Amino acid sequence: MNTSVAILGATGYTGSELIRLLDTHPHFNVVHLGAHSQAGKKAGEVLPGISGKLASTVLAKSDAPLPEDVALVFTALPHGAAAQSVKNALDAGKKVVDLSADFRHKSHDIYKAAYQVEHPCPELFEEAVYGLTEFTRDRIQGSRLVANPGCYPTSTLLPLIPLLKSGLVDSEKIIIDSKSGASGAGRSAKTELLYCEVNEGLSAYGLPKHRHAWEMEEWAGSLSTQHTSVRFVPHIMPMSRGMLSTLHLTGNRPETWHAILAETFANEAFVNLLPEGKLPSTQAVKGSNRCDIGLAIVGKHEAVVVSCIDNLLKGASGQALQNANVMFGFEETLGLSATALWP
Amino acid sequence: MNTSVAILGATGYTGSELIRLLDTHPHFNVVHLGAHSQAGKKAGEVLPGISGKLASTVLAKSDAPLPEDVALVFTALPHGAAAQSVKNALDAGKKVVDLSADFRHKSHDIYKAAYQVEHPCPELFEEAVYGLTEFTRDRIQGSRLVANPGCYPTSTLLPLIPLLKSGLVDSEKIIIDSKSGASGAGRSAKTELLYCEVNEGLSAYGLPKHRHAWEMEEWAGSLSTQHTSVRFVPHIMPMSRGMLSTLHLTGNRPETWHAILAETFANEAFVNLLPEGKLPSTQAVKGSNRCDIGLAIVGKHEAVVVSCIDNLLKGASGQALQNANVMFGFEETLGLSATALWP
Amino acid sequence: MNTSVAILGATGYTGSELIRLLDTHPHFNVVHLGAHSQAGKKAGEVLPGISGKLASTVLAKSDAPLPEDVALVFTALPHGAAAQSVKNALDAGKKVVDLSADFRHKSHDIYKAAYQVEHPCPELFEEAVYGLTEFTRDRIQGSRLVANPGCYPTSTLLPLIPLLKSGLVDSEKIIIDSKSGASGAGRSAKTELLYCEVNEGLSAYGLPKHRHAWEMEEWAGSLSTQHTSVRFVPHIMPMSRGMLSTLHLTGNRPETWHAILAETFANEAFVNLLPEGKLPSTQAVKGSNRCDIGLAIVGKHEAVVVSCIDNLLKGASGQALQNANVMFGFEETLGLSATALWP
Amino acid sequence: MNTSVAILGATGYTGSELIRLLDTHPHFNVVHLGAHSQAGKKAGEVLPGISGKLASTVLAKSDAPLPEDVALVFTALPHGAAAQSVKNALDAGKKVVDLSADFRHKSHDIYKAAYQVEHPCPELFEEAVYGLTEFTRDRIQGSRLVANPGCYPTSTLLPLIPLLKSGLVDSEKIIIDSKSGASGAGRSAKTELLYCEVNEGLSAYGLPKHRHAWEMEEWAGSLSTQHTSVRFVPHIMPMSRGMLSTLHLTGNRPETWHAILAETFANEAFVNLLPEGKLPSTQAVKGSNRCDIGLAIVGKHEAVVVSCIDNLLKGASGQALQNANVMFGFEETLGLSATALWP
Repeated sequence: MNTSVAILGATGYTGSELIRLLDTHPHFNVVHLGAHSQAGKKAGEVLPGISGKLASTVLAKSDAPLPEDVALVFTALPHGAAAQSVKNALDAGKKVVDLSADFRHKSHDIYKAAYQVEHPCPELFEEAVYGLTEFTRDRIQGSRLVANPGCYPTSTLLPLIPLLKSGLVDSEKIIIDSKSGASGAGRSAKTELLYCEVNEGLSAYGLPKHRHAWEMEEWAGSLSTQHTSVRFVPHIMPMSRGMLSTLHLTGNRPETWHAILAETFANEAFVNLLPEGKLPSTQAVKGSNRCDIGLAIVGKHEAVVVSCIDNLLKGASGQALQNANVMFGFEETLGLSATALWP
Repeated sequence: MNTSVAILGATGYTGSELIRLLDTHPHFNVVHLGAHSQAGKKAGEVLPGISGKLASTVLAKSDAPLPEDVALVFTALPHGAAAQSVKNALDAGKKVVDLSADFRHKSHDIYKAAYQVEHPCPELFEEAVYGLTEFTRDRIQGSRLVANPGCYPTSTLLPLIPLLKSGLVDSEKIIIDSKSGASGAGRSAKTELLYCEVNEGLSAYGLPKHRHAWEMEEWAGSLSTQHTSVRFVPHIMPMSRGMLSTLHLTGNRPETWHAILAETFANEAFVNLLPEGKLPSTQAVKGSNRCDIGLAIVGKHEAVVVSCIDNLLKGASGQALQNANVMFGFEETLGLSATALWP
Repeated sequence: MNTSVAILGATGYTGSELIRLLDTHPHFNVVHLGAHSQAGKKAGEVLPGISGKLASTVLAKSDAPLPEDVALVFTALPHGAAAQSVKNALDAGKKVVDLSADFRHKSHDIYKAAYQVEHPCPELFEEAVYGLTEFTRDRIQGSRLVANPGCYPTSTLLPLIPLLKSGLVDSEKIIIDSKSGASGAGRSAKTELLYCEVNEGLSAYGLPKHRHAWEMEEWAGSLSTQHTSVRFVPHIMPMSRGMLSTLHLTGNRPETWHAILAETFANEAFVNLLPEGKLPSTQAVKGSNRCDIGLAIVGKHEAVVVSCIDNLLKGASGQALQNANVMFGFEETLGLSATALWP
Repeated sequence: MNTSVAILGATGYTGSELIRLLDTHPHFNVVHLGAHSQAGKKAGEVLPGISGKLASTVLAKSDAPLPEDVALVFTALPHGAAAQSVKNALDAGKKVVDLSADFRHKSHDIYKAAYQVEHPCPELFEEAVYGLTEFTRDRIQGSRLVANPGCYPTSTLLPLIPLLKSGLVDSEKIIIDSKSGASGAGRSAKTELLYCEVNEGLSAYGLPKHRHAWEMEEWAGSLSTQHTSVRFVPHIMPMSRGMLSTLHLTGNRPETWHAILAETFANEAFVNLLPEGKLPSTQAVKGSNRCDIGLAIVGKHEAVVVSCIDNLLKGASGQALQNANVMFGFEETLGLSATALWP
């Protein structure tokens, strides 16, 4: 029952996290690692944390042909670059979970507005399933191509969709203030990502409209059937992993919202709703695939919802594996932990 | 021209920062350090960063009589405890800059609502001058008692007041999302402030209404003459110093707001307005008394303002010294730097 | 084939880490959590990272009677306090892995010299097996009581023992300079462990002779049959997990030492020897039970050995589980990972 | 009495720190900032922490001609590149404090062995004065060219030289284990310096013989007249600023060593000897030009000395200013603080 798996873009933070997760997965078996500038080296030379057989795997070029027996490809490549690899893998008969942004949109115009590039294969947009597992698992099951959600949208949409569906939240007055650990910015050698530039610092970025705002609006709207607009301000902060989104919401009867969330997530392994008034911390989800959600009522028509994930897990590689489990009919939680590496 | 100074509550983070600043001040001369549980020790044993004469000063009890020659007292004591020390100092003919919250409000009801304690001397409320220097320096000049603003209110009110005054910002729809370094929580030995509990973590707290929200509303209203209400969510994050407040604002003609800020702060030594669209970082103000402000327009009626301070400087001890300079007729910037310790 | 397990001292960092590890163990089943001041609360209230069934387990008092079906007890209590709990558990017919220092010594005099307390049950010293798994697994197999090694000794003894055994290292001239993350200092609310006191700081402590120096000398000597003395300087540094020991060694033919280590650890799942001249980082072992070892020759008679562990895993709870696996005849690696949570 | 100053290499961490220090200096006046790839930009765009006039200074090319009125040049350029700029400045009649390694050695062979490059102007070696101020201030006074010591050598030589001079320390058995904050590695965009690669990590590097070991041996020998050899292992750790060196020393009558240090440094403003047995922390010197030294006796013939500096101050730009003060006959402490920015 072993399924052979390839990871393209294995040497970034999300690729590395996929290797870690898949290493202990009972059914998926990583047989191919693709990389860009590091191709030719052993994986362990570039990724010091991995061990065993995978550490001595030689990194293939990202565009090298995939082994025949590979049934599933994770593409952890930059947007723009991912699309062609996804197409090639699909053409070769593989299933794909794409961690890039290339298949998260249904309209080429919106994709272009958000990413400022032409898409090489928009014809695949329709087929791609947006992999916010808790809300789209039915469609993921039969799909060949899952577009894995962005980290900010994941942390935001999980609590937002059920509240929007209720019709009680004003979908045009949503303010989202998000804070991300530095691994969210990737592993490229840029001055502004140096230790000394990030440490003891906090800054906002991405205004007037960050790419993920487009994604939030599209999927908040589509999955709740409420036209939605968000004001979204992301921040980068000095921690390696972790993301916290603070949702400042307006609407009717906020005293009923906690129950709505409770009902929605009652049977979800990876969504953990805290008692009303209690607010979560990113520390409690580090290294786990969990999303912790807290809600506090702050006015007759106002509530604050706080949502925490590990950006490399539920915000990227963890959710990607969750989706792969669904695609291949495995138990959704296989290889994923709901307990954090704490402290 | 030497003025003798006492610091009560010298062993906390704000007290320690006052010692550092005053140590190089050309006119103020620290002659008395009061402490609570550490009284009897030398200051240098409790505060490893200080040096020279002050390091070997023996810490007096907080309630010990003040030396006669002391003309100015900084009270860096917990709210509730500060009030009586302030009163004693005033009765003894000293001037006072109080870093606690005890004299920041004009109504006993609001003070009680925010702090849940009775105030021992509300009769001093009227006399106390709120020391947001840039907006109240005229009144500070002649005063005996300055109530030094809280860190969150300082970071928020500086950009907010001129915008409110313009009448262009909707004063009932202000959302403030603030993030503070851990020194803002003080130096008490609590499990939740341990390194391992704060590091690699981020959390929101203080809902439904944090104490500083009362202070913001009172002074935003009073200093702008616009009745103001805020939704305020503070967060604590893993850095020692620094505070960033993100103001999500709604109103008319946001394209004119940057000019309003520019005009207001044109001649301010400690307020640094960035070019429109550029957003500040706490790193750039660490160790300085500066407030860096950025503004980005995000909609026809929406703008985001981001404001950064060092919570121990412009957010506490730096502003306290700025106020003391004004009280005693010294140049306002004496002993204060606008350049950060970076990185 | 389920084995019921109790953890005493469940709310500290090592207790919490045991819960995390055991939660996914296929055979051990945690049924009892003991705590001190937090008894009566649910585990999840005190340990935010855990989830599921264990999170809602009510914490028993540390000295409450153990459930009958419990076959194995992990004692993660302070030294001095642990001994009595260990004795009680043994008397009740349980096996014990003790994470405290109470059974790491064979002589009461040395125990007293190191810990400055009388031991309540030194009669158990003889029976206790020192659980440095790689070197004592034969004795662990049949034992009732395993004394789990200290973190500093583990990081030090692993490379040191085979080198001492070779007779090529001068066992009287060993200098060990170790650096530990802050979780090594435990979870008590002390001022010197506050975030702001640890962050951006590094300090040495524990001189003239840290407790763990006694342990290193005893077991380096006993397991290598070379009388050994060490000069040991520990440091505490700003990271949550991780420990690096730098061994400055003198002796003969250091060019042969790498091969000695290679041979010793060839088949060890949790000891990872790097190529000669390459030095390890604590990042690469965070969250794993691995010990990474590097060796560089720096003179005709000198070499430097660097050894990295996660102090909460191979340095505490991970090795404790490794030992428990051996005691109960399970595969030694069960429930333990050799891949790090990186970054 | 204003002296015009140029800084070449202004946009790195040491250049930036020089700007900060000189900004408040009463006599030195920065009139020229040279940079490499950032030339043409305003200083404030590249160095967010600076303010005022200097922030709007346009960065000149590093090899642009210096203004005539410049009397002093600080070269904060990479080794190899610095030498030519130093020569040019001297030829133009300026005095120079060189923060690179280019003039720290007296023999071309040793320079080449340590730095692996040919030196363009070894004829200047003789004239250059090694600027370990506390031990060479007499020679600095009349010099045109000061070679500012490396950070590791500064932290090591300060306590080592007086002990070596006493003849009581075995100068062939010196083991130095140093730990540096990340700013010591400079501001170049390298993957291994990214926040996520440094944070929560610690590693040793630079073996078998780090460049600074050559410098330590040369100057420990020259300034103490004892031939000296050191085993030196540097480490990089997750903090922005700070350096701690642990010296493991062997010799005679260690009980007399503390008094030797006390006598040597009795009148030094920037060397702070702690009481015997007390060990320093880097936190206590952050942002100050201080070197804190502690000594603990650990055997009949052994002691441990721990020395802490801020690597950007006493380890680089602070000592450079201290030297410049001496060169120009100003008070040595001008513009430098002995009190730390703490926490």
